[in-house]
Amino acid sequence: FMNSEFRSRDYTKIVSPPITYIAGEEMTRYCMDLILTQCVNPFVEISKWEYFDCSCKNRDATDDQVLKDAVASGAKLGSIFKEPTVTPSATQVKQMGLKKALPSPNGAMRKGWNGITISRDTIHIPGIELGFKEPVLFDRHAVGGEYGAGWKAVGSGKLVTTFFPDDDTAPVIIEGRHLKDKNNVAVVYHNPLDNVPDLAHHFFSRCLEAKVVPYVVTKKTVFKWQESFWQIHKEIFDKDYKKKFLEAGLLEKTRGELQHLISDAATMQIVRWLDGGFGMVSHNYDGDMLTDEIAQIHRSPGFITSNLIGKSKSGNMIKEFEASHGTVADMWNAHLRGEETSFNPLGMLEALMGAMNHAAALQGGETLKVMTHYTSSLRNAIHNTFRYGEGTRDLSGPTGLTTEAFVSKVAKRLARYLERDDCGELAYGVKAAEPLPVDVDAVYKMFGDADTDRDGMLDKDEFIALLVKLGIAPLKERREETEDKAAEEAQPADPAAP
Amino acid sequence: FMNSEFRSRDYTKIVSPPITYIAGEEMTRYCMDLILTQCVNPFVEISKWEYFDCSCKNRDATDDQVLKDAVASGAKLGSIFKEPTVTPSATQVKQMGLKKALPSPNGAMRKGWNGITISRDTIHIPGIELGFKEPVLFDRHAVGGEYGAGWKAVGSGKLVTTFFPDDDTAPVIIEGRHLKDKNNVAVVYHNPLDNVPDLAHHFFSRCLEAKVVPYVVTKKTVFKWQESFWQIHKEIFDKDYKKKFLEAGLLEKTRGELQHLISDAATMQIVRWLDGGFGMVSHNYDGDMLTDEIAQIHRSPGFITSNLIGKSKSGNMIKEFEASHGTVADMWNAHLRGEETSFNPLGMLEALMGAMNHAAALQGGETLKVMTHYTSSLRNAIHNTFRYGEGTRDLSGPTGLTTEAFVSKVAKRLARYLERDDCGELAYGVKAAEPLPVDVDAVYKMFGDADTDRDGMLDKDEFIALLVKLGIAPLKERREETEDKAAEEAQPADPAAP
Repeated sequence: FMNSEFRSRDYTKIVSPPITYIAGEEMTRYCMDLILTQCVNPFVEISKWEYFDCSCKNRDATDDQVLKDAVASGAKLGSIFKEPTVTPSATQVKQMGLKKALPSPNGAMRKGWNGITISRDTIHIPGIELGFKEPVLFDRHAVGGEYGAGWKAVGSGKLVTTFFPDDDTAPVIIEGRHLKDKNNVAVVYHNPLDNVPDLAHHFFSRCLEAKVVPYVVTKKTVFKWQESFWQIHKEIFDKDYKKKFLEAGLLEKTRGELQHLISDAATMQIVRWLDGGFGMVSHNYDGDMLTDEIAQIHRSPGFITSNLIGKSKSGNMIKEFEASHGTVADMWNAHLRGEETSFNPLGMLEALMGAMNHAAALQGGETLKVMTHYTSSLRNAIHNTFRYGEGTRDLSGPTGLTTEAFVSKVAKRLARYLERDDCGELAYGVKAAEPLPVDVDAVYKMFGDADTDRDGMLDKDEFIALLVKLGIAPLKERREETEDKAAEEAQPADPAAP
Repeated sequence: FMNSEFRSRDYTKIVSPPITYIAGEEMTRYCMDLILTQCVNPFVEISKWEYFDCSCKNRDATDDQVLKDAVASGAKLGSIFKEPTVTPSATQVKQMGLKKALPSPNGAMRKGWNGITISRDTIHIPGIELGFKEPVLFDRHAVGGEYGAGWKAVGSGKLVTTFFPDDDTAPVIIEGRHLKDKNNVAVVYHNPLDNVPDLAHHFFSRCLEAKVVPYVVTKKTVFKWQESFWQIHKEIFDKDYKKKFLEAGLLEKTRGELQHLISDAATMQIVRWLDGGFGMVSHNYDGDMLTDEIAQIHRSPGFITSNLIGKSKSGNMIKEFEASHGTVADMWNAHLRGEETSFNPLGMLEALMGAMNHAAALQGGETLKVMTHYTSSLRNAIHNTFRYGEGTRDLSGPTGLTTEAFVSKVAKRLARYLERDDCGELAYGVKAAEPLPVDVDAVYKMFGDADTDRDGMLDKDEFIALLVKLGIAPLKERREETEDKAAEEAQPADPAAP
């Protein structure tokens, strides 16, 4: 029913369900403002969104009440978009004249939304090679490990860790050890496991939907306490997912079973498995390390999502969507100096579309359908803009567009697709398969350069010279005898030789 | 004085200073036996070596006394070579009929030799590209962290960690926390810091000698207790090394200062810094992860060293040299089935040469000179064998040599270099610069295939077709208008359009 309305110049805007929108800082905030103005507002009614300015200045001015309010809003609405924010250094605290150092908002968000996992997946633009060919999914346990560790610097002495159960049964000594060095740091932490089943379900469902092979990554061979993380995953997998994965043919590489991967081996496989098509779930710190490695192999953190998945007290999933990168301070400073910038907002756009889709999914029905139509059109507008070579300069090279021109181009294309009511799918499908045309002028120039006697033809000698120059001449096999080697072989073990 | 003797067929063997030789298992033991027989024994008198058979069967038969003896020998001699060993799984314990499960020998070695660092560096063969162009050095703190953690699975309750100083001053609460989940694991560990200054000196000396840029890698921005690891390095660097690094021009990339790198950022830089020429020092677990990533980027663990550096009670450095890989069980099984194998022993040979050089360095003087002459000849014999395309199949492809043929070829070349008394340097230098010869027959075949009208010349059309087939035809710039895109641009936002 909405479709006809897309065709009219005066769109009846989609009404977006409520979203918690957390605004941040610098280049990314500037660019999101462009996107909201040009790609969202003309098509989507966003009056139900709850907006929170989590810039340092506003957090400071409100004594961080704005962050508390944002977290409360997110817990209520269940779908959150967050721009990159700044966690100010001591220097920045002074520069910005803040009352005190502000902590990263991550802690408050993970706690307020009962964070289970941080999902970080590769973003793909069909027809453009980034790093991994097929999707790579990652779920990083959002709690536990060294992030919340207690510690102190100590001398030599005995370190005793004791557990006093809530049920008032007898205390248990976790461990006693004698530190013999003169200088030590003692570190204690815990891994809470109650939400690991939720993590497992989230991870396996996603892998199944994306048709990728799941791997559970730990260092349990040495860090024996990590065994339970694996066991919980294994039990849930065997009970609820194994059959489905087998049917989908996704366990052929893993002998029909869920596979465990040792964390340091995972650092190697990420380099090797460039075809993608796999998922990994891991503890908190391992996930921190491995997802950054994945991001770099897949070109940069700009092409990786970062979504915090939690659960409300009533059992609904809370999903917060953000880009994997920061506020891009360098580019912001260039912009402030009046220089041209070319910031790639793909990660933020994916996050925004994720939040809008999740908000719509929470409502379901017609809202979801209409929203999906909008976000599909937007995604195709972005992808096609990159694929037409009108992307930002990180992908399209020096001839790529500026930050502002890119957003405008996407907005124009989006308007056209919504009018045409085809989500841009036609262009999308045709382009991906179509080879780029040969630059005949350039070929003729190569030919002319190679044609050294200028007779309009290449003879064999000119051909060899060209291949050598291009570095593509077939070489003799390395085993072929070379003069020096032949000499070596011929030389008898002659004691009289000089 | 020895040089003339190398020229005679009846070599006066070099007398090697004592080395602790730890033998292991499977393919790697088999190959080391070939190497000892053909590349060492004919040229080096090794009767002073102390040999320990640390195979599972012998460890079991001696109730692991052999490992204790090997560790004691290593502590005494200061230079150790170790073949890969097997730490038997429960299945292997049964299969081999062992009395009980044997622990990895690593713990006993690290403890017995007061392990400071595990040094893992890239191995390079001049003229053959592996991964990193220039050397990458890594020092991983050999003690501390989660490897020796205490832990227990617990329910909800209070976890209290207390420190009782040896000097009988008042106990200190490291931390108290309330675990609220029903299922948790509590984990406690410590990082001993007394040998970090030794680690720092070892690391910076190595970086300076190899002319690479040093980086200290931690997660101290979040894991605040790691600050002291950085501080110790920073103080030692500024006091003893900064001036030398500045003079060597090695701090240009780091603004003249020692640079800290966050561990997850390090996973990214390892992917990006393919030119090599850097060193990293890190905590124990980070080093485990990062060195495996480096190994994979540099093709495989076969091209990375693994040396445990410790210190005797009298203050002498103990150095244990081993390959980064395991016993290569798959290849061993193939060998047992009578199949041909092609095992690359480069990592083990580097380790053996390292141990021999270090043993000689502990004696100094003429011994060091003579030993260096031998190991340089051996290294060149290995490198040249690879560079003549006679390497193992991992590098030289399907036409590469078998395990046995490769060792024989290296041995022959070594004999020739020792006779010639030039360390093989001539071949070495000439070959690296010499381009491989064009395979003219193959070029003519390409030419013939492309010359579709068989007139003995390529015209422009034949040339274009060839470039397209080779996938190297210059393409029009992506920004070039394509039909579909032009149509899009031309299409006005016409509300009446269908």
